[in-house]
Amino acid sequence: MTSDATVTNGHTKHESSSKKEWIRLNVGGTTFLTTKQTLCKDPHSFLCRICHDEQLIDSMRDSTGAFLIDRDPNYFSPVLNYLRHGKLIIDKNLLEEGVLAEAEFYQISSLVRLLKIRLKEKDDSSQGNKRTQ
Amino acid sequence: MTSDATVTNGHTKHESSSKKEWIRLNVGGTTFLTTKQTLCKDPHSFLCRICHDEQLIDSMRDSTGAFLIDRDPNYFSPVLNYLRHGKLIIDKNLLEEGVLAEAEFYQISSLVRLLKIRLKEKDDSSQGNKRTQ
Amino acid sequence: MTSDATVTNGHTKHESSSKKEWIRLNVGGTTFLTTKQTLCKDPHSFLCRICHDEQLIDSMRDSTGAFLIDRDPNYFSPVLNYLRHGKLIIDKNLLEEGVLAEAEFYQISSLVRLLKIRLKEKDDSSQGNKRTQ
Amino acid sequence: MTSDATVTNGHTKHESSSKKEWIRLNVGGTTFLTTKQTLCKDPHSFLCRICHDEQLIDSMRDSTGAFLIDRDPNYFSPVLNYLRHGKLIIDKNLLEEGVLAEAEFYQISSLVRLLKIRLKEKDDSSQGNKRTQ
Amino acid sequence: MTSDATVTNGHTKHESSSKKEWIRLNVGGTTFLTTKQTLCKDPHSFLCRICHDEQLIDSMRDSTGAFLIDRDPNYFSPVLNYLRHGKLIIDKNLLEEGVLAEAEFYQISSLVRLLKIRLKEKDDSSQGNKRTQ
Repeated sequence: MTSDATVTNGHTKHESSSKKEWIRLNVGGTTFLTTKQTLCKDPHSFLCRICHDEQLIDSMRDSTGAFLIDRDPNYFSPVLNYLRHGKLIIDKNLLEEGVLAEAEFYQISSLVRLLKIRLKEKDDSSQGNKRTQ
Repeated sequence: MTSDATVTNGHTKHESSSKKEWIRLNVGGTTFLTTKQTLCKDPHSFLCRICHDEQLIDSMRDSTGAFLIDRDPNYFSPVLNYLRHGKLIIDKNLLEEGVLAEAEFYQISSLVRLLKIRLKEKDDSSQGNKRTQ
Repeated sequence: MTSDATVTNGHTKHESSSKKEWIRLNVGGTTFLTTKQTLCKDPHSFLCRICHDEQLIDSMRDSTGAFLIDRDPNYFSPVLNYLRHGKLIIDKNLLEEGVLAEAEFYQISSLVRLLKIRLKEKDDSSQGNKRTQ
Repeated sequence: MTSDATVTNGHTKHESSSKKEWIRLNVGGTTFLTTKQTLCKDPHSFLCRICHDEQLIDSMRDSTGAFLIDRDPNYFSPVLNYLRHGKLIIDKNLLEEGVLAEAEFYQISSLVRLLKIRLKEKDDSSQGNKRTQ
Repeated sequence: MTSDATVTNGHTKHESSSKKEWIRLNVGGTTFLTTKQTLCKDPHSFLCRICHDEQLIDSMRDSTGAFLIDRDPNYFSPVLNYLRHGKLIIDKNLLEEGVLAEAEFYQISSLVRLLKIRLKEKDDSSQGNKRTQ
């Protein structure tokens, strides 16, 4: 996953900013704004497929044209941010298990793997704590 | 509770996406977007009944057509997510007791059972801690 | 405080759903949706009085007809939920002291009592911890 | 700072409710609703001055008439609540330092003093902990 | 970074309030309101460049005229507040790593440095804890 920004001669430019194709998602009642480029970071994901299947899009938009998705909006944020910058950042009040449920739904396999590793590490460490207590 | 997604020949498809019937709920002033399929995961719940009782719906919609429910929106999220993916994920800043109050109001018996078990386990473990201190 | 739902012959019904009188409150800029039945659970509260004093209502509505209240919206949620289901559920990121300030403003005496008991218990227990340290 | 409510002969009345002058603030993109009476609890504050300087107001309103303020909305809430009920209630996920930055910006001297005392107490107590460790 | 407010003869004035140029940003679906003066506190940042490159602005506005940015809104708040008052205030439920990702995207070098120092201190201190355990 590469950065959106390139630095040239002291001037920095967000390269493809003018070429971006914006897409709005209505996830469980909350509107998210992003680009097709972001949603297609993983070309096999459900999010990338909705960018390309025009027929699918037509039947699933709300009155404002946003694409309808029947999932939780709060747990969608870390998924979308992962696609944006390639890092897994989970707010302290959210649970890894909840992000995993979304990563599986959206079929982003690298994120599913990352979350399963993190959950396993947490589990191992809590087992370790129990043993040493 | 089965997944919304099926995998066929390397291509994954969110099966019933084009056939979904979308419904908007105005829960205590916050709008949630979901489908009748999700709300009827438990056919005996209050949420499923409002999908089928057209007369009831007519008398309880707001000006935008969303169905009115006089309950807390934050505590509705884990209930709706449970219907969406079958997992009980409660944000760290919310209380199990609050989700139970909603599960009972919406009459989702499997979720009520799950929450009572979880609350009993927590209670047992805190009793255990007290005894060993 | 009784439940909104009655169970008859295996079919459960949210009794007064069609007879509900909906009311919108604009609390500090956030819109809440509820019913006069909920707001009048405590007939001596400020919230019940605004349902009945039509003259008062006329002079304090916003352009969408919502009743204006100059208070914090986040701390109003546990107060409104208490009227909805009779339980005191305070999110982990909120403070009891803040809910008490609202309960006093809205003049819900049973909730004020409940919060004062809870704050006293917390105080006693933290005193106890200090003594045993 | 006195309460908004007076109790007379068993009937309680929110005294000046019909005389309130409502004002909307657009703080960093989020709309807050309050009254001039609340904003002028501290007559020397920036918030009170914007209520009286009509010329200033004209040049800084958004299209809906809300007064524009280029500050964070989440950290404005405890400041506004302090003006409403005279208590300093800071949600557990916010930092005292952030509320102080806002109190200084809005020039509410009693709140600045209160926050500096609280931060000093916290600092002393953490110093004390370090010494006794 | 200097304050927005100057005090003269007992009367305090928010100096440039009438000269402010307001700008709306649509960050990932959430609208933020701020000024060009704030966005240009760091003249080399991406946020300042969007204020000056009119051509760029034209191709990236939403229907309400807000400038479109494909990033997380919650993690944008501490970045914008840093530009507003020069302090780094990170809510307890957010992660430093997430703010760093945004500071890098928006190319605010002083904030990137500040965050890297803070993350290094945290890392050193957790290493120290491990050694002394």
